[in-house]
Amino acid sequence: MTPSEIAAFLAGIAVIILLARLFGHLAHRLGQPSVVGEIIAGILLGPTLLGSLWPAFSEHLFPSADHVRATFNALATLSVCLFMVVAGMDVDLVMIRRQGKNAGIIATLGTALPLFISLGLGYGFPSFWGCGQTSRYVFALFFATAISISALPIIIRILTDLRLFKSNFGMMVVAVAILKDLFGWFLFSVVMALAGGASVPHRSPALTILLTLTLVALSLTLGRKLVQRTLPWVQKQFPWPGVILTLIISGSLLLAALTEWIGVHAVFGAFLGGILFGESLRFEAKTREITEQFITNIFAPIFFASIGFQANFITALQPALMAAVLGLAIIGKWISFSLGARLAGLKPPETQATSAALLSSGIMGIILGLVGLEKGFITRELFVALVVMALVTSILSGPLLSAILRLGQRKGLLEILDPDLFVTDLQAANPAEAIRALARLLARKTGLPSEPLAEMVIAGEQAMSTGLGKGLALPHGQCAGIKRPSLAVGRSTQGIDFNAPDGKPSHWIFLLLTPQEQDLVQVQILSAIARRFNDEKFRHELRAIDTFHQFRRLIETTSDADSPGGL
Amino acid sequence: MTPSEIAAFLAGIAVIILLARLFGHLAHRLGQPSVVGEIIAGILLGPTLLGSLWPAFSEHLFPSADHVRATFNALATLSVCLFMVVAGMDVDLVMIRRQGKNAGIIATLGTALPLFISLGLGYGFPSFWGCGQTSRYVFALFFATAISISALPIIIRILTDLRLFKSNFGMMVVAVAILKDLFGWFLFSVVMALAGGASVPHRSPALTILLTLTLVALSLTLGRKLVQRTLPWVQKQFPWPGVILTLIISGSLLLAALTEWIGVHAVFGAFLGGILFGESLRFEAKTREITEQFITNIFAPIFFASIGFQANFITALQPALMAAVLGLAIIGKWISFSLGARLAGLKPPETQATSAALLSSGIMGIILGLVGLEKGFITRELFVALVVMALVTSILSGPLLSAILRLGQRKGLLEILDPDLFVTDLQAANPAEAIRALARLLARKTGLPSEPLAEMVIAGEQAMSTGLGKGLALPHGQCAGIKRPSLAVGRSTQGIDFNAPDGKPSHWIFLLLTPQEQDLVQVQILSAIARRFNDEKFRHELRAIDTFHQFRRLIETTSDADSPGGL
Repeated sequence: MTPSEIAAFLAGIAVIILLARLFGHLAHRLGQPSVVGEIIAGILLGPTLLGSLWPAFSEHLFPSADHVRATFNALATLSVCLFMVVAGMDVDLVMIRRQGKNAGIIATLGTALPLFISLGLGYGFPSFWGCGQTSRYVFALFFATAISISALPIIIRILTDLRLFKSNFGMMVVAVAILKDLFGWFLFSVVMALAGGASVPHRSPALTILLTLTLVALSLTLGRKLVQRTLPWVQKQFPWPGVILTLIISGSLLLAALTEWIGVHAVFGAFLGGILFGESLRFEAKTREITEQFITNIFAPIFFASIGFQANFITALQPALMAAVLGLAIIGKWISFSLGARLAGLKPPETQATSAALLSSGIMGIILGLVGLEKGFITRELFVALVVMALVTSILSGPLLSAILRLGQRKGLLEILDPDLFVTDLQAANPAEAIRALARLLARKTGLPSEPLAEMVIAGEQAMSTGLGKGLALPHGQCAGIKRPSLAVGRSTQGIDFNAPDGKPSHWIFLLLTPQEQDLVQVQILSAIARRFNDEKFRHELRAIDTFHQFRRLIETTSDADSPGGL
Repeated sequence: MTPSEIAAFLAGIAVIILLARLFGHLAHRLGQPSVVGEIIAGILLGPTLLGSLWPAFSEHLFPSADHVRATFNALATLSVCLFMVVAGMDVDLVMIRRQGKNAGIIATLGTALPLFISLGLGYGFPSFWGCGQTSRYVFALFFATAISISALPIIIRILTDLRLFKSNFGMMVVAVAILKDLFGWFLFSVVMALAGGASVPHRSPALTILLTLTLVALSLTLGRKLVQRTLPWVQKQFPWPGVILTLIISGSLLLAALTEWIGVHAVFGAFLGGILFGESLRFEAKTREITEQFITNIFAPIFFASIGFQANFITALQPALMAAVLGLAIIGKWISFSLGARLAGLKPPETQATSAALLSSGIMGIILGLVGLEKGFITRELFVALVVMALVTSILSGPLLSAILRLGQRKGLLEILDPDLFVTDLQAANPAEAIRALARLLARKTGLPSEPLAEMVIAGEQAMSTGLGKGLALPHGQCAGIKRPSLAVGRSTQGIDFNAPDGKPSHWIFLLLTPQEQDLVQVQILSAIARRFNDEKFRHELRAIDTFHQFRRLIETTSDADSPGGL
């Protein structure tokens, strides 16, 4: 590169990071996932706006010379791989197994149904949907995968923002998303194999699929064991945080290179690497934070903004195609997830919440679309439609879920407040004691045996602590013997360490018991409580509370409005 | 890039990071700066070893196709810019001003003398030294700059490892290195301007120099104020660690692009950015750690290893040239720094320690050499000689300094132990009280007034806390009224918070008073104490100490051997 190209390269990266993060924050302020803002920043900097309005400046900042573009693309590839490592780190294989059956049913139906519908539609009308230079069946498969894939990182962020991530409902949704992602990426590898994207030409699709399956199987069994055994040893030998960081990044990039070489895209291997190393990172909070922060703030924006550079989003926008893709994605997914949730035995309000939470096809759909565009499987018009679909579903998911949860929610919380289940001087030194004390109250009221009840909640608390920060802890459990939810409230003056993320002791402990199979009721009540604690005014007034009557009034008079979502 | 090139690109990065960090750790184990290992890893992976022994595999992993090489080079440029941001973050403008006069004298003489000698030699015998395709005077200037430049990051690391960073001596050395670095990079910008490296052709050297001066002046005055005012505001508006991270990286890359565009190399602007943002980062330890860790562990290795790819270090090695460069650099610098230190009024042992500490021309010399090679100013042979020189001086500096410090050191510490200056039940709740109590003992012994003595040490403690961690605090001061060092030792049973990096209270407080202008005596005694505390056995036995006699025996019987240096 010439000096002026180097200058442009560095300035271009800087401008992309800066603008993408700025728009990301604006999106966040508006209660949206920040990727939405980052993608929009890229569209503004790309041929759609800057390139059209001010081509000379655009050429200065983002030279169109082939070798500069190639360098930018290589950096975007590296960025998306690093992003997929972070996305993979969110996958929790143990949790999937625990949520097992229900998640499996919903994921299978939620993937299979839209997959088959779009497979049929894609195969039936390839030119309408925007088939590129590939065979009809490869296009249809690719199209179906892009439509049916989910967006784990966005879903996790939406659940976290609504304080649902630690609930049973949240864990179930995340398990479904993980299964769908794994399944989607596997489908994708099959498509790539069939399309002959392999770097070694003339390799048969069957061999590529076989190699991919072997790699996945080896990674998740032997590889997983190896990582779990080796990392602690390495860490002991080299006690610096940098060592694990080095291993994660280089190990994942090696897996990425391997999958790319096999014929599946590099992102798949990077994702696999994230899963493998993420598990061990759960015990290495610092390294995890360094990795996440740097990649989320520097590389992810570079990648998401680079999406906007791939097309002119105005000239390549086909309203009919876009509407069709949107309709197919939203309606198809909604119906499939609802059916799946019903089949899994969920009740009506819960099925809707599940569908809303899983609607977002955000990032993963875009990454897939980008690969399809690069390989020439799909037209620029379909790519634009897929990006818009990903944006729209990501934007819709949070507010929809939040709205469903809020229906009749205030009444729900007020209804179950009970003066007999309220203590202002909870005497307990640790979570187990607090739970036992509150469980005794509940047992007296519901007629359930006190000790098993307490043990069940304590077991749940040990598996995943419910200290939410800001002085609040929400231990909870589900129970077959009751018909309606029951809530015991205790205040501890000295505070109890519920392992909250902000490190502060919990002064208010809410022990919630809900009927079996009514996840959403639990979620609604938990989030009605959690949302109030988000409000500083509420927390302030709570400090002056002495009687049940005052407490009930405070709950009654505070709105539980709250800005939803946002990555 | 084709799929196989993408696979190679990702795998290549992974292998480079992995091997570079591995060798970096091995170097660290051997008491060497880890950059030494990282550079050696690059030499092994590059044409010197892998490329010669196994060309087919090398071609697979690091394809020689132009566009792949160009991409690798762009990534290396980005990496070195990011590394320079971290290096710039170590610069402390306030400290330079405080160390003022002495540092100025040593830096000026230490730079000017080797500069003029190598300027003369370079101009006199350009073909011997390896002049490239440029004019004789540009080459001579470039050569002289590369020979006389220092390596701030390595020097800081060596001082930290020897626990000298927080001493007066350490601060003086760092101030000298910073001044030298600033001066060296400015010289470099002059060379680049004269050589016409500007991205806008036909710009006169005078204009480039003027623009550079203006940029530096504006950055360090207006820019600095702007950053200091803006960052806290931004942080308040967007209270996530990621915001500052984004601003540092994108702001520094913008400055890098600007300097590259002006006609100075991008690294200069990145370094400037690091200085500007580093100051504000002192209050943002978390962001600083994320930035440093990720860049040090991922990008720095990529850059340092890439050095090894620039040449075959065996075929391009000219023994005569290398010996000449090494001799010129080591002897020239040693004499210049010794003269400078003498002129600044330092005593003989201190002048030697100063020279040893400032010997390393490590990283900066290499970066300069790389730019010279890229631009064609210097031959591949001189480049290799400069890299070897940088490696050798970096390797020598730590052990040399350590050896100088150790001469007669144990005797020094034993000599000044005094039963009247020893208390096992120091009653103090904070550093100031502890210092006052120990100062009273010292005052009684030396006849100095107690109160001013305590205030001086407390002022120093407030400017830079001396809690070193592992239960040790080393408040100290220099005083014109005494002839020999004096040491008061106090043990606090409950511990005192001396703001140690490990967050633990200090149980052993050593208050050291040394004669004015005898920095090295202070350093020797301080490091003799600090080194002992590094030893777990010593700390364990210390816990059982009750009397001065036992304490003296323990000091006498413990070796102060310790592995020196290491980045």
